[in-house]
Amino acid sequence: MKVARTDFARLLSAVAKVVESRNTIPILATVCLVAEGGTLTATATDLDIEISGSIAAEGDFAACLDAKLLTGIVTKVAGDEITIEQGDGTATLRAGRSKYNLQTLPVDDMPSMAVDGFTAEFTEDLAALFAPVQFAISTEETRYYLNGIFLKGAVDTGSQAVALTAVATDGHRLAKHVASGVSAFDGIIVPRKTVGLVPKGNITVRLSASKIQFVADGTTITSKLIDGTYPDYQRVIPSRNDKIVTFSGDDMARAAGRVSVISSERGRAVKVEVVNDQATLSVNNPDSGNASEDVIVSYANEEPITVGFNSAYLGELVGIFPPGDVKMALSDGAGPVLFTSDNAPNLLAVLMPMRVH
Amino acid sequence: MKVARTDFARLLSAVAKVVESRNTIPILATVCLVAEGGTLTATATDLDIEISGSIAAEGDFAACLDAKLLTGIVTKVAGDEITIEQGDGTATLRAGRSKYNLQTLPVDDMPSMAVDGFTAEFTEDLAALFAPVQFAISTEETRYYLNGIFLKGAVDTGSQAVALTAVATDGHRLAKHVASGVSAFDGIIVPRKTVGLVPKGNITVRLSASKIQFVADGTTITSKLIDGTYPDYQRVIPSRNDKIVTFSGDDMARAAGRVSVISSERGRAVKVEVVNDQATLSVNNPDSGNASEDVIVSYANEEPITVGFNSAYLGELVGIFPPGDVKMALSDGAGPVLFTSDNAPNLLAVLMPMRVH
Repeated sequence: MKVARTDFARLLSAVAKVVESRNTIPILATVCLVAEGGTLTATATDLDIEISGSIAAEGDFAACLDAKLLTGIVTKVAGDEITIEQGDGTATLRAGRSKYNLQTLPVDDMPSMAVDGFTAEFTEDLAALFAPVQFAISTEETRYYLNGIFLKGAVDTGSQAVALTAVATDGHRLAKHVASGVSAFDGIIVPRKTVGLVPKGNITVRLSASKIQFVADGTTITSKLIDGTYPDYQRVIPSRNDKIVTFSGDDMARAAGRVSVISSERGRAVKVEVVNDQATLSVNNPDSGNASEDVIVSYANEEPITVGFNSAYLGELVGIFPPGDVKMALSDGAGPVLFTSDNAPNLLAVLMPMRVH
Repeated sequence: MKVARTDFARLLSAVAKVVESRNTIPILATVCLVAEGGTLTATATDLDIEISGSIAAEGDFAACLDAKLLTGIVTKVAGDEITIEQGDGTATLRAGRSKYNLQTLPVDDMPSMAVDGFTAEFTEDLAALFAPVQFAISTEETRYYLNGIFLKGAVDTGSQAVALTAVATDGHRLAKHVASGVSAFDGIIVPRKTVGLVPKGNITVRLSASKIQFVADGTTITSKLIDGTYPDYQRVIPSRNDKIVTFSGDDMARAAGRVSVISSERGRAVKVEVVNDQATLSVNNPDSGNASEDVIVSYANEEPITVGFNSAYLGELVGIFPPGDVKMALSDGAGPVLFTSDNAPNLLAVLMPMRVH
């Protein structure tokens, strides 16, 4: 078969990103190429996610080649065209003045992901929906059902509008982002690795009880869903926190970053003391010293309030909101704290406080 | 004391780069700050290399602070000025709305590098002299005397001109670069880490039997030399290789890069077969396949010649020459191969061949 080099390079980079760098099963280290009827289709899988894509090609071909090696060759060779000729357990690749003989595996060895009947299909900028909540996905293996983003399409009983809701939490922090949707569907859990592979911009999304599929720019990504029950996150979002502190998100993130310099590890607490229109952030590290920083805030309540956060979490969480003011709603310094912004009415985040002295 | 923040940041980044990230001796993790008479001098050391530098400062100060922490703070805080106030075993740093209390160590704890009488001093662009030979420095600990660049100032008995020669070798490859010098001095060995710290451009270089010092832009770097005898590298440079192959250095480096894709580890050989005006590079990897690539060369000799090189070494070595033609001089394919370029008459490199079938 013969293909255009730049098209082939783009196809391989889209498909091969699912291939893990270490594989005990040889076929999972390959990308399978099938050319027929003027089209080359490349497919790769890690058994949980399958990516395939197509480009125009002349001639026939059917074999699986080492993904890393093939990508390396195609990005390095010169010339506008690449030809690959099939042999017996080998393939000969030619481009410019280069010639490679490569070992192949038969395409039948490639495990194929059974695609069950999709029950919902819609177009959405899923990457934009996921972006501000992604940071809160858990990495804890024991609570595997938190290792992804919860996604649900719910119909409002009044307006009949569909709200597409994405939620992620690791038990310490939670983020929820809502967009207007078109299809109602039961909640699913999209695994972390799959979240990282969602193509940017508007894409076609297909759903079944056990799979999710994204189609964009000639590439199809099919992934298993996490088979588990997502906890009732609504319970965690406080609704009666009445002590409202408003500040520039940028100022607060920078201040948190500055006082965190003093904390040698991630877990250290930053103490936030709000008195009138000033918040003082401080971190104390017995090994190196302490740091404090003032941030101008707007706080209507006369009663001073003190709350502690993981210093790394505070800056990161404030950073998910668009530029401008962020509102922090507290009850008593011990319960969950709610973060919102008038600039992003569809986004909220919750942070559990840490005990500080 | 009070200093300008940007000056202080620049001073710290210049001085703190000698501080190793892990230190069992606490004082070696610090940078010592001494301000008096309008000048702040910062000093850090790893016991082999000492870097110090100065900027303008108001007021007095004398204490050592954790280098990583201080650098982190100074690069993150806002405001044009930083003040540091001395306490008892602590220092208070203020900038913008930030305040840090930091633990300190006394300046007397900082080991000082005894500076013996320098016997030579000259101005030279040492970084430019070292640049093309640096890649050949050995990392083998047993032959510690190869873990640096050999530097010598030798007087030509005829012209009385001084040649400043830099040589590096790891036993497999060797590079030699010569510049016109001013001072004659016995050969010294500059350690690898010190080579990496040589400031760019013309600098003042001072030498003694056991130390080398670089002075540039208000920063002084003093380093111990490697105490050993450098081998007689002249013996390794072939002088009678009469089979001359000329090629575009860029073409050869790219070709070597392309065929190397097939070699999973660094040590694999690339076979170079020269017949008339064509060189064919090939790599054979039983695990994945083989690769071949043609390069147009100019070769006057009628007898074909075959030589093998470490595939990673060939591309890297050819890359040290300026753009344009590179000459490869061989004897029989088994002895050392000499690389030169008419565009860099002061530079040569030698590569030991590998056996190929």
